[in-house]
Amino acid sequence: MTPTRNRLCAMFLGASLGLGVLPATADTESAKETKISSFTLDNGMEVVVIPDHRAPIATHMVWYKVGSADEPPGKSGIAHFFEHLMFKGTSNHAAGEFDRAVAGIGGNNNAFTSYDYTAYFETVPADALEQMMAFEADRMRNLVLSDDVIATERDVVLEERRSRIDNDPSALLDEEVSATLWQNQPYRIPVIGWVQEMEQLNRADAQAFYDRYYTPNNAVLVVAGDVEEEAVKAMAERTYGKIARGPHLPPRQRPVEPEQNTKRTVSLTDERVSVPSFSMQWVVPSYHTAGPGEAESLDLLAEILGGGMRSRLYQELVVRKQIAVSTGASYNGTMLDDTSFTVYGAPVGQASLEQVEKAVAAEIARIAEDGVSADELEKAKKRFVRATIFARDRQSAMANIFGSTLATGGSVRDIQEWPDRIGKVTPEQVKAAAVRYLLPSRSTIGYLLPQAKGGN
Amino acid sequence: MTPTRNRLCAMFLGASLGLGVLPATADTESAKETKISSFTLDNGMEVVVIPDHRAPIATHMVWYKVGSADEPPGKSGIAHFFEHLMFKGTSNHAAGEFDRAVAGIGGNNNAFTSYDYTAYFETVPADALEQMMAFEADRMRNLVLSDDVIATERDVVLEERRSRIDNDPSALLDEEVSATLWQNQPYRIPVIGWVQEMEQLNRADAQAFYDRYYTPNNAVLVVAGDVEEEAVKAMAERTYGKIARGPHLPPRQRPVEPEQNTKRTVSLTDERVSVPSFSMQWVVPSYHTAGPGEAESLDLLAEILGGGMRSRLYQELVVRKQIAVSTGASYNGTMLDDTSFTVYGAPVGQASLEQVEKAVAAEIARIAEDGVSADELEKAKKRFVRATIFARDRQSAMANIFGSTLATGGSVRDIQEWPDRIGKVTPEQVKAAAVRYLLPSRSTIGYLLPQAKGGN
Repeated sequence: MTPTRNRLCAMFLGASLGLGVLPATADTESAKETKISSFTLDNGMEVVVIPDHRAPIATHMVWYKVGSADEPPGKSGIAHFFEHLMFKGTSNHAAGEFDRAVAGIGGNNNAFTSYDYTAYFETVPADALEQMMAFEADRMRNLVLSDDVIATERDVVLEERRSRIDNDPSALLDEEVSATLWQNQPYRIPVIGWVQEMEQLNRADAQAFYDRYYTPNNAVLVVAGDVEEEAVKAMAERTYGKIARGPHLPPRQRPVEPEQNTKRTVSLTDERVSVPSFSMQWVVPSYHTAGPGEAESLDLLAEILGGGMRSRLYQELVVRKQIAVSTGASYNGTMLDDTSFTVYGAPVGQASLEQVEKAVAAEIARIAEDGVSADELEKAKKRFVRATIFARDRQSAMANIFGSTLATGGSVRDIQEWPDRIGKVTPEQVKAAAVRYLLPSRSTIGYLLPQAKGGN
Repeated sequence: MTPTRNRLCAMFLGASLGLGVLPATADTESAKETKISSFTLDNGMEVVVIPDHRAPIATHMVWYKVGSADEPPGKSGIAHFFEHLMFKGTSNHAAGEFDRAVAGIGGNNNAFTSYDYTAYFETVPADALEQMMAFEADRMRNLVLSDDVIATERDVVLEERRSRIDNDPSALLDEEVSATLWQNQPYRIPVIGWVQEMEQLNRADAQAFYDRYYTPNNAVLVVAGDVEEEAVKAMAERTYGKIARGPHLPPRQRPVEPEQNTKRTVSLTDERVSVPSFSMQWVVPSYHTAGPGEAESLDLLAEILGGGMRSRLYQELVVRKQIAVSTGASYNGTMLDDTSFTVYGAPVGQASLEQVEKAVAAEIARIAEDGVSADELEKAKKRFVRATIFARDRQSAMANIFGSTLATGGSVRDIQEWPDRIGKVTPEQVKAAAVRYLLPSRSTIGYLLPQAKGGN
């Protein structure tokens, strides 16, 4: 095994990005500076330009509309494996040349794979933008996939699986909870892949994946930074524009969930666990699959129930009852298909896991029965807006919002109108979301348990 | 909706056939009569002939090596749907003609779909055998798949799903237990299909499925009855032999299970349930995936632990403790991929479900700790042999054993040698199977609960 690049390989396994972070809007002071534009190149590549002139830097991202949930059956892990392969040599540049070029100008670069997309990015001085485009356009089509490269990098991702998943009881549990929560939808399969399938990934698989998905008509270019639309367009045409359109891809229709009729539990007992914890999940609609206002209501329900220290769960379990060391809720709305809503908790001191679980359930039941107040909802909306203003300060966060939304069936307009749609959510809608989706008899609960205490 | 034929449509959802039933062997008296032969036609169709001259009848079966586990993603239910379509018209015979021909000569016919195969059979006077072959060969390639036929029959299978699954809490629970037990393998998907996918099945799907799988080189013909090899061969060549070989099919490699690290539960609470019950399952190797002697040991472990009234579970829970109304164990070895081992129980009188579950677990632990005695094992083997002699009396059972074995990667020789392999299993092997596979911390438990008593 030869040494490989030592980069952070990010897989977004959950609600780590996007929603809950508000993009530029007319409601905020600095929004006037930002005129976001979008257009499509002749070969089908979508482009979004987000000017941000506060510093002479630019974030350049290419999002491919392919993630682990698009993998052929039995080929789990190939989307993430391919992300690794994209850092190998092309017919024009040796392996490592792109990375060194970025480092040489003081920039940074990386990539990540999720269920619905794979993205590559560089943050560099703005005058290096066209150079980044040229490198990125080159590896979109000119990658050299040799058996040697495949074998070496397969060992790398297998090692990554060992260190990240197999060595971590909570990651192992998360995998099996997902495989239990999702009965049919491919979000059930881990992004990194099942080990016995990763071991079999080969050059033919990689080449087929590349030829099908790494094409301009399956990609979104997002450029944020000290740039103007016209200049970006000209550069994109000179670089990406030269690539021929790839084969037509049918709409991304995947197996969807059947009705859920049962309550399920998944327990992992492991000697490496010191504090027990639980998470409870439900299948809920995403922004792409929800009816009007429903995803926005779920976002606000997560915020009120368990979004940080002001939330009901934190205030009740950590502050008032002092039975939990951690508790919260999250909703991961930026997904192509139906997604999950999660609550979680871990006991502190003499409190038991069961006590924490019951207290969390009681808070859910309280919203389902009594709803939320107009005042509480307004405060939750304000917290969202505040989070936005912080997010806008990070150029890459802005680029992420646009890339992830466009790669999961949303539009630039969806992002621009989103703050208004959040503003219109009523207390009744938040209550209705809790009543409809957070049913105890339809939940999937994961228990992470210390060895000594025994099973659930 | 037009009226449709009123036939029993069988789906083998579990251990309903095959193993546990012994074929003809040199050890039994009547075995000498039976010379089983097998050969392959030029177009790749396998043929097995099982002479049985006790009555002038014959069982004619065609097994296609395709079942629900071979379905394309998102097309669940198409294998079973296609079984229905095979009873529609061909370019040579109107719909119902085949059925009427069988009924007219006093025969009977039917079909069934399982995870790994789909089979069609007729039991008729032996002199009608070639007529059956002609009909069956005709519908192997000349089916007329119109949009009208598709729409009508899709309503029929949807209604079948409603009446068989959706109206039956235990069937609903079984579905979700399977989807939880299997994290990756397609046995997780119900044979009848998920409703939202069944609704979308169309003519193009059916035609593609037919053209790919309904070919002589993907079929096994089994003829049992008052016939001789040479005559069967001549008839098969005159009928099936005229069909051209279909496209080459790659080996049936499906997604396989990752290591299981968790204990899982699935609870269905329903007002239609009066007596609670549970089943506990594990992923274990099948005859096709097991190492030497391992599947045979699992068969005998199931027999000793919970195979009928002589078993440990029955004797301990029903007879001695009188806490269970039912309890048992089963192993479904005749599968292409890894399969499941199941124990189950339901309380009687004042006993609780928890008591029954604990008593079942204690019996498993007793075998894992203390093993089984040589005497107990020999008695279990004898019960198997006795079951065989009964089974041989039914011509169709013999045909089923050969068809299901050949359709799941086994050979005629595997069947013939199986009694010897059962005979060689040692008490140590039975204990080892329990220790290795029936781990409480790796089980998936389904609970069927009455509404009033609440969740688990």
